[in-house]
Amino acid sequence: MKIGILGYGNLGRGVESAVRQNEDMELTCIITRRDPKTVKPATEGVEVYSVDEIEKVKDKIDVLVLCGGSATDLPVQTPEFARYFNVIDSFDTHARIPEHFANVDRAAKENGHVALISCGWDPGMFSLMRLYGASILPEGNDYTFWGKGVSQGHSDAIRRVKGVKNGKQYTIPVEVALEAVRKGENPELTTRQKHTRECFVVPEEGADLAQIEQDIKTMPNYFADYDTTVHFITEEEFSRDHAGIPHGGFVFRTGVTGFEKEHKHVVEFSLKLDSNPEFTSSVILSFARAVYRLSREGVSGCKTVFDIAPAYLSPLSGEELRAHML
Amino acid sequence: MKIGILGYGNLGRGVESAVRQNEDMELTCIITRRDPKTVKPATEGVEVYSVDEIEKVKDKIDVLVLCGGSATDLPVQTPEFARYFNVIDSFDTHARIPEHFANVDRAAKENGHVALISCGWDPGMFSLMRLYGASILPEGNDYTFWGKGVSQGHSDAIRRVKGVKNGKQYTIPVEVALEAVRKGENPELTTRQKHTRECFVVPEEGADLAQIEQDIKTMPNYFADYDTTVHFITEEEFSRDHAGIPHGGFVFRTGVTGFEKEHKHVVEFSLKLDSNPEFTSSVILSFARAVYRLSREGVSGCKTVFDIAPAYLSPLSGEELRAHML
Repeated sequence: MKIGILGYGNLGRGVESAVRQNEDMELTCIITRRDPKTVKPATEGVEVYSVDEIEKVKDKIDVLVLCGGSATDLPVQTPEFARYFNVIDSFDTHARIPEHFANVDRAAKENGHVALISCGWDPGMFSLMRLYGASILPEGNDYTFWGKGVSQGHSDAIRRVKGVKNGKQYTIPVEVALEAVRKGENPELTTRQKHTRECFVVPEEGADLAQIEQDIKTMPNYFADYDTTVHFITEEEFSRDHAGIPHGGFVFRTGVTGFEKEHKHVVEFSLKLDSNPEFTSSVILSFARAVYRLSREGVSGCKTVFDIAPAYLSPLSGEELRAHML
Repeated sequence: MKIGILGYGNLGRGVESAVRQNEDMELTCIITRRDPKTVKPATEGVEVYSVDEIEKVKDKIDVLVLCGGSATDLPVQTPEFARYFNVIDSFDTHARIPEHFANVDRAAKENGHVALISCGWDPGMFSLMRLYGASILPEGNDYTFWGKGVSQGHSDAIRRVKGVKNGKQYTIPVEVALEAVRKGENPELTTRQKHTRECFVVPEEGADLAQIEQDIKTMPNYFADYDTTVHFITEEEFSRDHAGIPHGGFVFRTGVTGFEKEHKHVVEFSLKLDSNPEFTSSVILSFARAVYRLSREGVSGCKTVFDIAPAYLSPLSGEELRAHML
């Protein structure tokens, strides 16, 4: 399968690196909105094209991985590029998924392509776990916890505070809440009871630290509803200790069965990821394989992870899967 | 959907109870090899038929759930009944799955039915986790641990030992092994390092306890390769403390990503089940929904959990799933 990348940021580089781990895949080209000369792929032989040169790459790509952001890039790019290619994206604005799906579905169907949206781990693998859990245990509760990991949105919010030179925010699930869920206690948890937020801030010289801390802790939507800790550190400490983009989280389904609903069950799925964009890229590529296969079967239209039979994700045949993995 | 049950043991009763938790399902009949008069369903209105009366129930069942054992029942029953019904089973003899698949596939295709084999949690949900994990992280390791839970096979083996009146065996994952895997240390684990076995034995009056303990601990295949503990208890203690059939386990995928393979990831899935047969039944019913839907789409042949797009498991529509679960 020939893979193309649109957008060469953290996610794009993650896809580039993950392609090397999949023997049936090859990265053929990177498409960019920048001047192609300024993009230097890490992989030899990969060509770089401008978004204005679609005609030149049409036959070089089986599946195009869209690596832009959900706020402004993907709502435009995914329907647009579904006209020319089979595409896959990681659109993660949960509330706007139905609208995005409809737009992409129309473009993909009109042009006979397969598109898969909202792929990664949440939405993505976590969504699958919520679906499996709720389908198996209809009488039960769902819990999703995120972290410990870096929230890009909250880190951006910190950096917009006056006097802040650099900053990073970690979302951390509350251990006592996790344990209550894990024991099947079905707790009702407020926002504050589920997660804490820990901020590492490099202040500008002479900045008012008390003011920064207060501005962060009282920021509506981002921090006001959480127990937030603010640590001030130096630029050196920041580079040394906070360069990575780790993340992870937990999805639980707890439920009951039995004629008297006397038996409890706890289903738990968790991720501990050293690199959020690289893991997301790895999920995307396994689903890109499914997109490619569906396209070769003559399918068209927009899909989500819910629509993909798991066997389509693996390079192994049905026989091999049944013999070795079932 | 009209559900039928063949075989009214622990699993059959689990299915009966789980049907009540699924609003789109109805249990119409139980088929038995015993005298139908001796089978008393817990649900009012459910009819009981002999296996010789298939013609009478042909139109009463959309999906027949086969609740027999894997050793001798299912290899015969699943292909046989796939001639008359859409069927689903929990065949769990891993080594014989390819052969079973071929037999069932032939019968199902010849008669235009859908069959799904090896459904439950292992094989079943654990198989799915192994497949997702290996597809997402191609460079990595798989680990499956079982327990803490009752192994029926090992409990049966104990009860065959001379001087044993009653007995139950719990398989227990070794905590230090779990922790090493969870930390991404990729340990190589022997059989003994992964699980211990704990036996609760009610001896016959005057039995030689030392001999029983030795016979159990040295039993090849079942116990000789494990650290095994034997506790002698009274029949009263047995009834009071060991009446349940709990089980569970863990599936891990650990792997690396990055240009230098510098980032580690740990994917963990675990189950803690108060009732093994009831949870297995609940998994089976969600996949029975998929069998029914595929059948209505005109599909025929044998499937496994790998072949089922997750959306087919849920009573919710695609729109609802995308809006609320993705």
